Amino acid sequence: MPGKESKAIIQFAGDEFFVGVTPSGHAQAIETNSKRNLAATPMELLLIALGSCTGVDVISILKKKRQKVTDYHIEVSGERREEFPRSYTRLNVKHIVRGRGLSEPAVARAIELSDQKYCSVAATLRGSAEIVTSYEILEEDLADA
Amino acid sequence: MPGKESKAIIQFAGDEFFVGVTPSGHAQAIETNSKRNLAATPMELLLIALGSCTGVDVISILKKKRQKVTDYHIEVSGERREEFPRSYTRLNVKHIVRGRGLSEPAVARAIELSDQKYCSVAATLRGSAEIVTSYEILEEDLADA
Repeated sequence: MPGKESKAIIQFAGDEFFVGVTPSGHAQAIETNSKRNLAATPMELLLIALGSCTGVDVISILKKKRQKVTDYHIEVSGERREEFPRSYTRLNVKHIVRGRGLSEPAVARAIELSDQKYCSVAATLRGSAEIVTSYEILEEDLADA
Repeated sequence: MPGKESKAIIQFAGDEFFVGVTPSGHAQAIETNSKRNLAATPMELLLIALGSCTGVDVISILKKKRQKVTDYHIEVSGERREEFPRSYTRLNVKHIVRGRGLSEPAVARAIELSDQKYCSVAATLRGSAEIVTSYEILEEDLADA
């Protein structure tokens, strides 16, 4: 719903842990001690949010274009400021698409549409970070050979 | 490590699901069909990332200031554009701190330091969204009466 306000609750759970409950009611542990590393950290969550947001755009556009995708994943890496606050300054988003007879222009266009038009997470992060996209297309038949 | 590049992998898992694996190796299911609502969505992850990022700053600053915090949670709500891309335009971050004899200036200062200086997630999101902070202080003894 446009303009809808939704509320997340983030509960301090002691010892540098938090339990985040999303507006839709899904809870998860969040680690804020990156050396201990027992769960995802806040800055890591931004990376998987970005990858999944753009990913669903790309896979649905490729489906509409009747592309035969057999496997798909996204790699997201971030570069941060050295000073506080250590925000992301650059986010690299690489799409690795495997399929049968995939059209390179179709893949490139799907990624461009997500990056420029549809992806809400990319649009939110872009104010601070440059987002750089790339892709790799793998042929299913050749890979099996 | 300043400038360190870290890579997340976001695997398409079929049927509008993704499995995100953070750079530190923590995997989680991500929902991209908000009507089905079986896991956190990408845009929801931004809210809990913001709350936990600022939360750890605040709780650690209050600890250094020898404030007696007995319970603490953060509420984060977001307002989005009505048009594509539906990025966040405003993020409301409310800190609810319970404790014994808490100093209001100490709480206000801790929140300000996180918001303006330390919180990497806030600094990343601020390029797109206005971040509005508020707080509520609850007295533990009175609450128990």
